[in-house]
Amino acid sequence: MAMEFLHFQCSANYVPLTPINFLERAALVYARKTSVIYGTLRFSWRQTHQICLKLASALSQLKISRGDIVAALAPNIPALYMLHFAVPMAGAVLSALNTKLDSATLALILEQLEAKIIFVDYEFVEAVVKALNILSEKGVKLPLLVAIPECDHALTSSIASNFPSGSLDYNALLEMGKHDFETVQPENECDPISVNFTSGSTGNPKGVVYSHRAAYLNCLAQIYRCDLGEMPVFLWTVDMFRCNGWCCTWAMAAVGGTNICLRAVSGTIIFHSIHLHSVTHLCGPPTILNMIANAPDCDRKPLQSKVDVVVAGSLPIRQVLEQVVELGFIIGHAYGMTEMLGPAIVRHWKPEWDYSSSVEHEMIKHRKGLNNLLIQGVDVKDPDTMKSVSYDGKTVGEVMFRANTSMLGYFKNPKATKEAFRNGWYQTGDLAVRNRDGHIQLKDRKKDIIVSGGEIMSSLEVEAVLLCNPKISEAAVVGKPDEELKQVPCAFVKLKEGCSASAEEIFKFCGDELPSFMVPRAIVFGDIPLNSTGKVQKFILREKAKAIVGAISDQNLKDSAFKCMHCHGTTEAPIPERHSFQ
Amino acid sequence: MAMEFLHFQCSANYVPLTPINFLERAALVYARKTSVIYGTLRFSWRQTHQICLKLASALSQLKISRGDIVAALAPNIPALYMLHFAVPMAGAVLSALNTKLDSATLALILEQLEAKIIFVDYEFVEAVVKALNILSEKGVKLPLLVAIPECDHALTSSIASNFPSGSLDYNALLEMGKHDFETVQPENECDPISVNFTSGSTGNPKGVVYSHRAAYLNCLAQIYRCDLGEMPVFLWTVDMFRCNGWCCTWAMAAVGGTNICLRAVSGTIIFHSIHLHSVTHLCGPPTILNMIANAPDCDRKPLQSKVDVVVAGSLPIRQVLEQVVELGFIIGHAYGMTEMLGPAIVRHWKPEWDYSSSVEHEMIKHRKGLNNLLIQGVDVKDPDTMKSVSYDGKTVGEVMFRANTSMLGYFKNPKATKEAFRNGWYQTGDLAVRNRDGHIQLKDRKKDIIVSGGEIMSSLEVEAVLLCNPKISEAAVVGKPDEELKQVPCAFVKLKEGCSASAEEIFKFCGDELPSFMVPRAIVFGDIPLNSTGKVQKFILREKAKAIVGAISDQNLKDSAFKCMHCHGTTEAPIPERHSFQ
Repeated sequence: MAMEFLHFQCSANYVPLTPINFLERAALVYARKTSVIYGTLRFSWRQTHQICLKLASALSQLKISRGDIVAALAPNIPALYMLHFAVPMAGAVLSALNTKLDSATLALILEQLEAKIIFVDYEFVEAVVKALNILSEKGVKLPLLVAIPECDHALTSSIASNFPSGSLDYNALLEMGKHDFETVQPENECDPISVNFTSGSTGNPKGVVYSHRAAYLNCLAQIYRCDLGEMPVFLWTVDMFRCNGWCCTWAMAAVGGTNICLRAVSGTIIFHSIHLHSVTHLCGPPTILNMIANAPDCDRKPLQSKVDVVVAGSLPIRQVLEQVVELGFIIGHAYGMTEMLGPAIVRHWKPEWDYSSSVEHEMIKHRKGLNNLLIQGVDVKDPDTMKSVSYDGKTVGEVMFRANTSMLGYFKNPKATKEAFRNGWYQTGDLAVRNRDGHIQLKDRKKDIIVSGGEIMSSLEVEAVLLCNPKISEAAVVGKPDEELKQVPCAFVKLKEGCSASAEEIFKFCGDELPSFMVPRAIVFGDIPLNSTGKVQKFILREKAKAIVGAISDQNLKDSAFKCMHCHGTTEAPIPERHSFQ
Repeated sequence: MAMEFLHFQCSANYVPLTPINFLERAALVYARKTSVIYGTLRFSWRQTHQICLKLASALSQLKISRGDIVAALAPNIPALYMLHFAVPMAGAVLSALNTKLDSATLALILEQLEAKIIFVDYEFVEAVVKALNILSEKGVKLPLLVAIPECDHALTSSIASNFPSGSLDYNALLEMGKHDFETVQPENECDPISVNFTSGSTGNPKGVVYSHRAAYLNCLAQIYRCDLGEMPVFLWTVDMFRCNGWCCTWAMAAVGGTNICLRAVSGTIIFHSIHLHSVTHLCGPPTILNMIANAPDCDRKPLQSKVDVVVAGSLPIRQVLEQVVELGFIIGHAYGMTEMLGPAIVRHWKPEWDYSSSVEHEMIKHRKGLNNLLIQGVDVKDPDTMKSVSYDGKTVGEVMFRANTSMLGYFKNPKATKEAFRNGWYQTGDLAVRNRDGHIQLKDRKKDIIVSGGEIMSSLEVEAVLLCNPKISEAAVVGKPDEELKQVPCAFVKLKEGCSASAEEIFKFCGDELPSFMVPRAIVFGDIPLNSTGKVQKFILREKAKAIVGAISDQNLKDSAFKCMHCHGTTEAPIPERHSFQ
């Protein structure tokens, strides 16, 4: 019978799912409501729709069409928000780039993207021009540069003089556009809408492609899991270039919210914005919690009404969380990844949580946490047999997702895509166990797990213990190759300002708290390398740890930042070798 | 570029949208939470999933497969709830039938459906057996009858003895099923999941086919527009056979709600259930508001916590609404139709509404009301030119929808489907104007509008005025053919118990309130024919009105229930002819 209905599918009952529709609806339903605020600038939803139509029209006049890539490099300013709609409305694909990238990496990404146009905020014109020069030397065809001045300002002549010839001013481009432009709807809802680059904690940022369908459905998921309600006031503390601002760019149009755009984020700005605009929601990296907790006393005031703040990544220390909660914020902790369009699972943080296990990859035990309304499958599986692990709290497997809110694939990388979607599930690379009640307890990144003498340990669990030491501010543990045990844990530790500690002291501390096989065999004191998201670059630490193997007898590393110190075990179990570097 | 990503579509990032998934998720996320309560019976979500798996397995053993139709005739009992998942889980299509249908209509519908199996609640076995006898006489192949006894009871032998040979007992069928059955997922998300019959206010119930995709998306819409939140307690006062209980059958699994099943509804039962189960939501026809307002004093108590009640259809009189609101209920008023999977738009009723315009098809002026998050287009258009009407509050057009939450089409009726989806929009048959601010003001059903001497009038607006007369309890106005004016309004009026009124009195009343062309030219006193939903059957009244033309000089109708009385106009404007029948 199914076949007999296929001819009934028409535009009346089948409309490709696309976030463009949210803006079209907002222009009608929330016509006069404020969509975007930036300093003294304000736009209504009707105006926003009209600006996006004009932008799309201008892009179309520049011969941008279906499937072309338009890149953008800007902080969370209105223009970048508008491009999230305007670029797909011209049928094209938006790639919002990380503003923290250096020119060399930018050049690499631009070469890969083959973007036809790049929109650049005035602050970043210099970096982009440098990247374009690199490309130019390689004989690569350059994208057209559109420079975005500060809103309502013209570009200063010093910036403008830097431009490659043929560059355009954003406002001039906008003027070209016609507001009666007919939006290009996706032919297929699975057509790409954006390319977002991973933060590159493994060293190679990969372009992750989102479809219109996934983005649309993920907006609905985001509304539900972040309790956005109707007409929230959203403070842009999460970068729009991260998973399209966790898809909040589009979701705000769905719920008729107000976007408070920001060029930069600080504790003072957060409190100021909350006070001025009655902000209801914000999200971003956990550093925003530190900003809130550490804001100057004159700014840090208890809230007048509920503000939801959702963060993804390692939570800051308990004291900070408690301070933030005390001020009246409701903290949501997200687990997700660029490939899942941002946070896949969000749960509310509560002071009664078992904090020892809540260092980024803690248990997902909240009701909503186990599974997301829009995720069709989440499981912990043996990646070889694809069998679900037993609910014993012990058997380690890999967290896998099956969801319409998953990426389309890696940009121009079918090999990596095939690998990530092996056996029809998205393989996160995160290892976990299933507790008896079915809850998933995350253990570690697959490549960060340490196997020592047949025992499997989570580097995060060792780090959690290290962070309980009152003298330690940051800690990272990686596996160090070992002839006898295959690997042994090696700890990189940063002490709090004004603190000093010996390796012996740290060994003793770990020995009291951990089984002997989990006690680090070497400790390195010093700064810990972070990437632009604030994630530890363990691939660098693994290289350093490898170097230690050869440097044991020297007691000195070539890297002048670290000094090697031989030492002996202080815990009861006999430990053959332990080294510390500081 | 779009093409280059198509090969990335796999089960990891593309899962057919289907409400079956909500149950699978609920079995994990809300495993031990209560899913269904019926009298002393309780089921958890895990149990519900297992029962549905067993039912699907049993259906599959009975050779039910992809696309087959399984019918059901039952009140809101747990078995009918389970069938909403079990039937699609076997790949089949559910048709829940109206329990108020007579055997002749049932026979017609069953013949059209060619259902392979029909599940029948013990109360309705007799009616179905009668219908099957009609079919049998026509030589039509009969469906297998599965009789559902009252939960936990066996069928009484008097009912069982009635069965056609080969009939099954629901519990025996359930026993056949295996809980390790592998659910049949839809091959295509646009495959049909159910067939729901319209209430037949035009005389011909049409089968409306829903797809998995539409049902899934409409559940998300329903969660948003009815503020269902997480884990609501839902009282089943809306028939599950109406648009699959407005899709709440499936939506409850999505949000892990508790379904309070009911065999019958009354004011006492509503208050008793709210008290016993802490009900948070209920919906249905406006009569439930009367039930609430008119419940016995001992039951009618103010609520302890918020209860949302959404009704679709003509709202009862203001006094009833105010009484219900005073008790603590929050009233939502829905506008929708079977073809849009139930209520498309819901707005909260507020006492400050302009009541004169809120008789069923009042203004849709609430923010959410203008357009629904999941509806891609709603417009008022000239059905001939398909141009949007101007925002002048005057130009009448037809309300049209374009939505993924629209029906797949009419069952075995491509002609009616093509007509309903003409020009790529679903044409509701409701006429409306657009106010200056873009809000849609509904006027009347297309076929109920009256055109008199070039003037267009809404029968509903005349009815609204009639209902303001304290002596009138029900009113319906239709067009009566007229040689000179093309049509003139003819009113059918039911007086309140113990009241008497002359036609002159009613004419005078209307003349004071309405422009002369809208004042009824004939008034008929008596009962007003309603269909099973409580909607006025205007096609019957139109026939009656036609008969009046021929009967004017007789001053008597053949229909003995009505008596014709000639009378003269009492308003200032000269009105050529007016008649009343009582």
